[in-house]
Amino acid sequence: MSLSPVSSYQPLNEQTVKELAFKLNFFEEDADLSCQEIGDGNLNLVFQISEKGKNAIIIKQALPYAKVVGESWPLTVDRARIEADALKLQQIHAPDLVPQVFHSDELLAVTVMEDLSSLNILRTGLINRNPFPYLAEHIGTFLANTLYFTSDYALHPFKKKEYVKNFSNPELCKITEDLVFTDPFFNSETNDFEEELLPLLKDLWNNFTLKLEVAKLKKSFITESEALLHGDLHTGSIFADENQTKVIDPEFAFYGPIGFDIGQFFANLTFQAITREDTEGKEEILTILSDTWNVFSETFSQHWQESGDAYTKVNGYLEYVLNKAFQDSAGFSGCELIRRTAGLAHVADLDGIPEKDKRLNAKRKSLSLGRELILNRHTLSSIGELTQLIRKHSS
Amino acid sequence: MSLSPVSSYQPLNEQTVKELAFKLNFFEEDADLSCQEIGDGNLNLVFQISEKGKNAIIIKQALPYAKVVGESWPLTVDRARIEADALKLQQIHAPDLVPQVFHSDELLAVTVMEDLSSLNILRTGLINRNPFPYLAEHIGTFLANTLYFTSDYALHPFKKKEYVKNFSNPELCKITEDLVFTDPFFNSETNDFEEELLPLLKDLWNNFTLKLEVAKLKKSFITESEALLHGDLHTGSIFADENQTKVIDPEFAFYGPIGFDIGQFFANLTFQAITREDTEGKEEILTILSDTWNVFSETFSQHWQESGDAYTKVNGYLEYVLNKAFQDSAGFSGCELIRRTAGLAHVADLDGIPEKDKRLNAKRKSLSLGRELILNRHTLSSIGELTQLIRKHSS
Repeated sequence: MSLSPVSSYQPLNEQTVKELAFKLNFFEEDADLSCQEIGDGNLNLVFQISEKGKNAIIIKQALPYAKVVGESWPLTVDRARIEADALKLQQIHAPDLVPQVFHSDELLAVTVMEDLSSLNILRTGLINRNPFPYLAEHIGTFLANTLYFTSDYALHPFKKKEYVKNFSNPELCKITEDLVFTDPFFNSETNDFEEELLPLLKDLWNNFTLKLEVAKLKKSFITESEALLHGDLHTGSIFADENQTKVIDPEFAFYGPIGFDIGQFFANLTFQAITREDTEGKEEILTILSDTWNVFSETFSQHWQESGDAYTKVNGYLEYVLNKAFQDSAGFSGCELIRRTAGLAHVADLDGIPEKDKRLNAKRKSLSLGRELILNRHTLSSIGELTQLIRKHSS
Repeated sequence: MSLSPVSSYQPLNEQTVKELAFKLNFFEEDADLSCQEIGDGNLNLVFQISEKGKNAIIIKQALPYAKVVGESWPLTVDRARIEADALKLQQIHAPDLVPQVFHSDELLAVTVMEDLSSLNILRTGLINRNPFPYLAEHIGTFLANTLYFTSDYALHPFKKKEYVKNFSNPELCKITEDLVFTDPFFNSETNDFEEELLPLLKDLWNNFTLKLEVAKLKKSFITESEALLHGDLHTGSIFADENQTKVIDPEFAFYGPIGFDIGQFFANLTFQAITREDTEGKEEILTILSDTWNVFSETFSQHWQESGDAYTKVNGYLEYVLNKAFQDSAGFSGCELIRRTAGLAHVADLDGIPEKDKRLNAKRKSLSLGRELILNRHTLSSIGELTQLIRKHSS
């Protein structure tokens, strides 16, 4: 069924990717194509191909290795299938909020999709203080739609279990299990931090109450198949401008706890609440965070009314599910704050602060807020209490 | 790779099953075999085949339908693969506690295994007041070994996720989802009960606090992949005598919450605590129940010490996991008590009581104890408190 011009996997280059684009009839035979590789090269090749005066397309290809810990390790290209399948499902449930997929090929580990380079990476946009007036509405809707419609509340149990199998993603999940939930909470080789943070980190590593709570959150991540998650929903996985929002790169997609996607998004917004120095800027972020939750919970609740599951009519069940997702999200966001500060993979929001004192100060806030979120997540009963906790620790 | 004498699935009969036994070299060419079908015919054919003076073998074949609600509905024979694979894993971890599998064939949906007909079905044995001095030790060990060694605490995450996929069991799980967790808690057509129980059942159906708790237990059943469960561990799935215990029929096996297997076993013991009229008989059952938990938790805790997972060294995590399993098991046992009393599938412990008043009295106790277990499971902090609750409601 594949239209691949080759019979086995091989990495594309600027020449062979053009041949593939012609073969797939994305361009006329005589088109004069320009092509550049625009990926960061860690996990994937990303080619932008265009004919003068026309819209470009993106051809993304998974590489059979990852450069995650400085050196390469083997990584299945099956994640390209998972990413393409996740994008197709997300497109059904959140049509304007993900890139359009034009074609995918399991053998080549290739996905051909809409070019979004007219938009900005959200993380960069937030650091540059660009306005994103629709961000909360869009991400709240994305979360509500993709999480509800892949859950047991919406799907026939056979379909749900078929998806759980299809989106089994052991290798990418292991990266999260190690780098988000384990390594940062132990004195691990993969950790990366300024030595000035060591005393604070030793406090975390010796805090067994904290580690017990992280163990519970990790257990939830590896055992609870609530919905198809994006799996890596930080602000670097979102393209946006003043009008549009597009969630990209769901190669970490798998069935997990609803609060994980929400928590990762919250944490990556929170870096901005921490690093912005003016109250107005901080409050702008806290409003986005709070609005995102409100849009999510209202939209999820609307969908819930349509569920065919008899128990969704039982008083209190929706509130239980939303409250669990909310408290889980607080805990997961705490893990993300800590791992992006002291773990292997950092964020430009923090590392981009040139003045050392300011940078260390922001990182200390991230670590202590992360700890508080993990320890106190079960005491939070409203989004207002969550934003108040963030406000307190980021001022 | 198959040794099947046929190229596609077809139900066996006493003639073709003998041919299969010869083909598989279980008997010499000239052996004079006797064969009888000893299954109940609802889901499977079970042939006992023997040569005079020698041990018999069992050839079990899944039928492509089930007679669960009085009429046949289609049901995948893939459950034979799941059962054989589950038996093989259980045999590794609890070698003397399951029948030996000699051969399995996916295409024919056939498993060839040890004949256990010298033992009794435990349910019948308990009703007849036979002694089972090793039951608690054996089932506690079976639970600890099969649940621990298929969990994330024992397995590499890739192997665990491979097992989750391999043991995806949507059709059999749906039977449990409907008949254990849903139908008995609503006025459903599949329910089956004496009309005298209707007032008590209406109380359950109108108890929204109860239904909310059942919704949470069902959510746990369908989303929490903690370990490979037997999935149907009632006293009719166990062969035993004074020395031996063998757990059979794991065709409902899937990755679910640890407390489910424990809870089903507890509930099916509890029917005996309810129906036995003498204190000594009741206490004998409560001792088995309590000893089973103690053997389970001690053995599970010993295995835990060998875990390579860094978080298993964190103080309090083992207690958290065991306490969750314990409280879950109380809740699941409550569901089992109710569904075996008023749902589709009944138990001989209750239905076999000839005197109507006594029978109804026992069923009322089952329903009210089931309700209490579901509602108060989170208040139970020790096995002594659980047996005390059962004692109170069964006297």
